[in-house]
Amino acid sequence: MAAAPVWSVDPRTGKQREQVAVEATAQEVDQIVRAAHAARASLADRTVRAALLRTAADLLDESAEHVIEAADAETALGPGRLTGELARTTTQLRSFADIVDEGSYLDVIISHADATQTPPWPDLRRYKVPLGVVAVYAASNFPLAFSVPGGDTASALAAGCPVVVKAHPDHPATSELCVDALHRAAVRLELPAEVVQLVHGFDAGVELVRHPLVAAAGFTGSVRGGRALFDAAAARPQPIPFHGELGSLNPVVITEAAAVERAEQIGEGLAGSMTLGTGQFCTKPGFVLAPLGDAGDALVKSLTHAVSEVEAGVLLDHRMRQAYVDGVAARAELPDVEAPVTPGAGGEHTVGAGFLTVPAARLASSGEHDLLIEECFGPVTVVARYADEAEIGAVLSRLPGNLTATLQLSDAEAADPAGRGAALLAELTPLAGRVLVNGWPTGVAVAPAQQHGGPYPATTSTSTSVGGTAIERWLRPVAYQSTPEALLPPELRDDNPLGLPRKVTP
Amino acid sequence: MAAAPVWSVDPRTGKQREQVAVEATAQEVDQIVRAAHAARASLADRTVRAALLRTAADLLDESAEHVIEAADAETALGPGRLTGELARTTTQLRSFADIVDEGSYLDVIISHADATQTPPWPDLRRYKVPLGVVAVYAASNFPLAFSVPGGDTASALAAGCPVVVKAHPDHPATSELCVDALHRAAVRLELPAEVVQLVHGFDAGVELVRHPLVAAAGFTGSVRGGRALFDAAAARPQPIPFHGELGSLNPVVITEAAAVERAEQIGEGLAGSMTLGTGQFCTKPGFVLAPLGDAGDALVKSLTHAVSEVEAGVLLDHRMRQAYVDGVAARAELPDVEAPVTPGAGGEHTVGAGFLTVPAARLASSGEHDLLIEECFGPVTVVARYADEAEIGAVLSRLPGNLTATLQLSDAEAADPAGRGAALLAELTPLAGRVLVNGWPTGVAVAPAQQHGGPYPATTSTSTSVGGTAIERWLRPVAYQSTPEALLPPELRDDNPLGLPRKVTP
Repeated sequence: MAAAPVWSVDPRTGKQREQVAVEATAQEVDQIVRAAHAARASLADRTVRAALLRTAADLLDESAEHVIEAADAETALGPGRLTGELARTTTQLRSFADIVDEGSYLDVIISHADATQTPPWPDLRRYKVPLGVVAVYAASNFPLAFSVPGGDTASALAAGCPVVVKAHPDHPATSELCVDALHRAAVRLELPAEVVQLVHGFDAGVELVRHPLVAAAGFTGSVRGGRALFDAAAARPQPIPFHGELGSLNPVVITEAAAVERAEQIGEGLAGSMTLGTGQFCTKPGFVLAPLGDAGDALVKSLTHAVSEVEAGVLLDHRMRQAYVDGVAARAELPDVEAPVTPGAGGEHTVGAGFLTVPAARLASSGEHDLLIEECFGPVTVVARYADEAEIGAVLSRLPGNLTATLQLSDAEAADPAGRGAALLAELTPLAGRVLVNGWPTGVAVAPAQQHGGPYPATTSTSTSVGGTAIERWLRPVAYQSTPEALLPPELRDDNPLGLPRKVTP
Repeated sequence: MAAAPVWSVDPRTGKQREQVAVEATAQEVDQIVRAAHAARASLADRTVRAALLRTAADLLDESAEHVIEAADAETALGPGRLTGELARTTTQLRSFADIVDEGSYLDVIISHADATQTPPWPDLRRYKVPLGVVAVYAASNFPLAFSVPGGDTASALAAGCPVVVKAHPDHPATSELCVDALHRAAVRLELPAEVVQLVHGFDAGVELVRHPLVAAAGFTGSVRGGRALFDAAAARPQPIPFHGELGSLNPVVITEAAAVERAEQIGEGLAGSMTLGTGQFCTKPGFVLAPLGDAGDALVKSLTHAVSEVEAGVLLDHRMRQAYVDGVAARAELPDVEAPVTPGAGGEHTVGAGFLTVPAARLASSGEHDLLIEECFGPVTVVARYADEAEIGAVLSRLPGNLTATLQLSDAEAADPAGRGAALLAELTPLAGRVLVNGWPTGVAVAPAQQHGGPYPATTSTSTSVGGTAIERWLRPVAYQSTPEALLPPELRDDNPLGLPRKVTP
């Protein structure tokens, strides 16, 4: 059987650009994973890992022109956005290098022997070790920052884990360019190229999560694809951690007082956030609770005006475009749903932004309107108009888990620790991993305090895929008991030769 | 249909002692979980939770006589061991109270707004919040420390999660006494009793892990039972974290030099560890690699002598006794397996300790001898005699994951950072969560640096069930973005009113 070709496709025309690779067979996946496993020891040295991450960032910066050109040709995301995404990607690589250097991620705890404890303590010294080979499933919508050189790869390498990336079919050429940069970084540091490898093909992705030497997986994508891989990871003879980001509605609650105060501004802000990147962000605000009445009407009017001015855009691929066109049509057909700006097909290869409104009461109990609280990828949002605060609570209680939840409050509500704003914040917290007040959820800072991950289906675990703590996903603790100083890893020796932050008792 | 009775049984006679409860129906489990969910808010205050844990410890101490009497009557573990286990249990409760007070488990990270970053940072403040209702599956072999008032319950309450314990059928009366003490502690602190509840029955346990309001589970038990519950947790519409400790062989490697130096002492130590508590510890050394030749023979002789002197003991229940008798018989029948001290049935209700030997070469590749590298609960171990170091490596590479792995080294090996001891330590580390040198794995200190959890099937996750970091299992991170000071939880306010340890940048 001939190897299946992998084509780079231009979403602006739907035409094949070039064949860039072939899909990996099961046998090839096996060889690749074995090679990754064999390369583990080369990542044992923290200094080398930090240098690898920084060199990779430098080489990506040097290749910026080619990488951005390829990514734009395959994704239509535009050079502006992609320039920003590359900067974000190299920031991520460098910040994980800093995290490796700093060393507190090792979570060193030393409990010296203590006969006075119940039961007595022997000498115990604990830190974290890498899990092993990590499988990374690249995202469609971030060809760089959540793909080959993205946060999962950067954090896994930082942890000391070799990586096998399953390329997303929307940007195979970009993936090849990026893995080439990572390989050149490895070679410069005299590391085996097998510390990061790339496979193409749906079946190769399934083989990967089932391979006995794959120790953990990171995924960004759809609920359907992610759940299938999660299930495969859980069904293995030896289950492995599967950190998947599957889908998020990113609800926004706008209080009556906020609408009275800032109807126009909120409408414009919402339009900007929901149509940013043609609505293809996982943090797109896809569901909005806005009041009925005059203030809410003013808000809808402002939203209508702003969304009407958004130009038609190109989605990442034609399958996605069809899903958008079908998805918004199915939603618009539901009883009592209106479309102040009709979302749907734009030109032959584009889509138009729009939004739907519905009485919130329609969502207070289960029924056909539940489609409106399912994520719809693309530049559309659903505005549910509520009559009273009880309706807000009723609808919120029916929402699935989310990456983000946003609150739009009036100045007075934002300043009152015992008021309606505080109560709503407490109501939103169980729904999401990141909660915002008077902001918009698109834009995810690469900061130590970031949490990009929330209750299922937003994430299949309690982890984050952005920010420094993302490294925790690829580590497990090991304790050494009564182990002679001569045999302890340097991280755990009494003299702390690496100068690590440590907790020591007594 | 009449409710199924739950009997307390005396394992020393196999006779029913008394009916202590009835099994919970699916409807009752639903009511119980809903009540637990409704009690969440009562655990929001850290001070109250710390007081609850300390009061529970005090009340258990006050009830010590009754609790130990009931536990001994149901488990035959003996008042000495049970007195120690109760002390361990109250230590655990009190140490989690200290952890709640100290507050670093909240993992507060504050990233102040910073426009100079790429991309710019908004104000982000992250800490950890409780997951919700936790299901705890009690262990057979620790009626206190890994059961109703045990580590899972203590750490979940510390995290702020209400708990529903599924009692182990080997000690229902003890379970009732313990939950009564926990309820009295709740009442003293004016908390609803529903913060900790108890259910009996196999089916109730299955209902529990499937209940939509159960947010996480902790389990200590067998591979078969634990895997079934793990699979149920993963198959839910919304999967939940399942932290299960399923089984462990706890391999021991004895070098030739160690055997030359301390054959007698190692034989005695091994006998003591493998027969402690009638071999019913999850950390029992169940598989030993010892050298062929004179030094190894001397070690086997010492082990033979020491194990011969161990009196017959009572296992936790008659089903377990039968599994032991059948399990050791099936192992002893394998070709080339010898039994210097034959393990098996003792009296009508007891079992006799023993051990088996086998040439290590028999285990270097897969076959019928693989039964010898499966855990066998009870006072038996398998000593595999190796001819050379290559055989050690070949057998180690075939072992499943473990809670512990132990190395017995000579003085010279223990002092040489570049010698055989260091190489073996590196070989054992991937196999276990706790690695010991010249000690024995039974006895698990409740210390900050403890790691009681290892690669599957030792544990279904990368967590620990003993030691301070066990609290991490019941929490998830939440970040607040651009949230006004007035609305932030006190843990995240600029003035740090609770005086928590925090990481703040820039």
